[in-house]
Amino acid sequence: MRRIHVIGIGAGDPDQLTLQAVKALRGTDVFFLLDKGEVKADLTGLRRDMLDAHLPEGSYRVVEARDPERDRRAEGAAYSAAVGDWRSARADVYGRLIAGELGEDQVGAFLVWGDPSLYDSTLAILEEVLARGEVAFAYDVVPGISSVSALASRHRTGLNRVGRPIRITTGRRLAEGFPQGVDDVVVMLDAHQTFRQYADQDIDIYWGAYIGTPDEILVSGPLAEAAPRIAALRAEARERKGWIMDTYLLRRNPGNR
Amino acid sequence: MRRIHVIGIGAGDPDQLTLQAVKALRGTDVFFLLDKGEVKADLTGLRRDMLDAHLPEGSYRVVEARDPERDRRAEGAAYSAAVGDWRSARADVYGRLIAGELGEDQVGAFLVWGDPSLYDSTLAILEEVLARGEVAFAYDVVPGISSVSALASRHRTGLNRVGRPIRITTGRRLAEGFPQGVDDVVVMLDAHQTFRQYADQDIDIYWGAYIGTPDEILVSGPLAEAAPRIAALRAEARERKGWIMDTYLLRRNPGNR
Repeated sequence: MRRIHVIGIGAGDPDQLTLQAVKALRGTDVFFLLDKGEVKADLTGLRRDMLDAHLPEGSYRVVEARDPERDRRAEGAAYSAAVGDWRSARADVYGRLIAGELGEDQVGAFLVWGDPSLYDSTLAILEEVLARGEVAFAYDVVPGISSVSALASRHRTGLNRVGRPIRITTGRRLAEGFPQGVDDVVVMLDAHQTFRQYADQDIDIYWGAYIGTPDEILVSGPLAEAAPRIAALRAEARERKGWIMDTYLLRRNPGNR
Repeated sequence: MRRIHVIGIGAGDPDQLTLQAVKALRGTDVFFLLDKGEVKADLTGLRRDMLDAHLPEGSYRVVEARDPERDRRAEGAAYSAAVGDWRSARADVYGRLIAGELGEDQVGAFLVWGDPSLYDSTLAILEEVLARGEVAFAYDVVPGISSVSALASRHRTGLNRVGRPIRITTGRRLAEGFPQGVDDVVVMLDAHQTFRQYADQDIDIYWGAYIGTPDEILVSGPLAEAAPRIAALRAEARERKGWIMDTYLLRRNPGNR
């Protein structure tokens, strides 16, 4: 039976690999590295460096493939449909890779930035591949340091306040309004700097980009002051590197709701 | 200047240590192991085993101390006051340990289960110690695999559904009502199995105790069926071991709100 590890490799710092992840890497025959257009060179390079650092040369094989692009213009109801189509196209690719590149008794691995449980679709895609019944395999998941934990560690702050809840959400959701019943909100996948929408409120922001890498940028402080600075830094960095991965925590003062 | 590492050591599986955490352990002179009454023997033992596994004998010192107990009878407004008193008492202990047991040019470490940013008070306590001005030190944070990531990995599920938010909260908060505007809720620190309150709703639960350890117990399924089973398993395990650490994800079917 084919086996697959879905391995969380941390948020950018190669030392965020866990011992469990290193063992899983060492037990893998074939690594599937999927790239997503513009971020390809940098992120594929970082993953290849991790393999070089922990595995004997010649002990493994790397298969690179192109991850289908999502239609990013879709909004509203079309958004869910576009995500569904995208997942289906990705399942085509993943299924072909597993059936075509992995021997019956071999172990494959997908390397996931951050933690595979948080805003990553690898597990859902593997379930879709299995549901189609065209190729059988067993899989397990190795948890990773999420970009959320990495962000908090670099700012040396807790995510929650004493006994209080946290929301983790997307930029798209944050644009619909500040979440109800919670004052500590972590935002991922925000290409539009939606935090600017709340710059008139009594909110602190803890923002980070390329966390744990040599390009890391951190900004924190009252949102009104920090928002324009982050917008400028973000635009400059995105221009320079061609891509950006950033995350932030919004901490609202509950006295001023 | 004294330096301190706050090191996330993962949710129970010693292989969840990151390479960064192992390096921080190796750069530490004095480990402060705080115990909390009944869970003392097991959890202190697990941390000592990690040190044994990664550090040369005689290269470090361990200082064990008793973590002050919180008044767990306090409810309502008294709850926050009790937590405040408790934090202050803990700051007394931590300050004494740092001033008394760590040389001026030495490195100390606190080992935190899971991730230091999630429902852990070590960072807030260190800030309180610094604010008192009685002892100066620099500190950094090494992120860890949270019990939330560990839970999701063992159930091989994502925490969020596509483009949707997540709530992370406490049993105490969940008892006040199912959170608004979110259907995927991770619950920590629930000594009262508050999930039973929602067993008449169309909710799936993914529950785990002692995750990543040889005692691990996992249960998932529709809440109505799983709730009594979890309650029984939990009571039996708690009785047998004397303590329990458990976490769960509630996933509500949004069609049936």
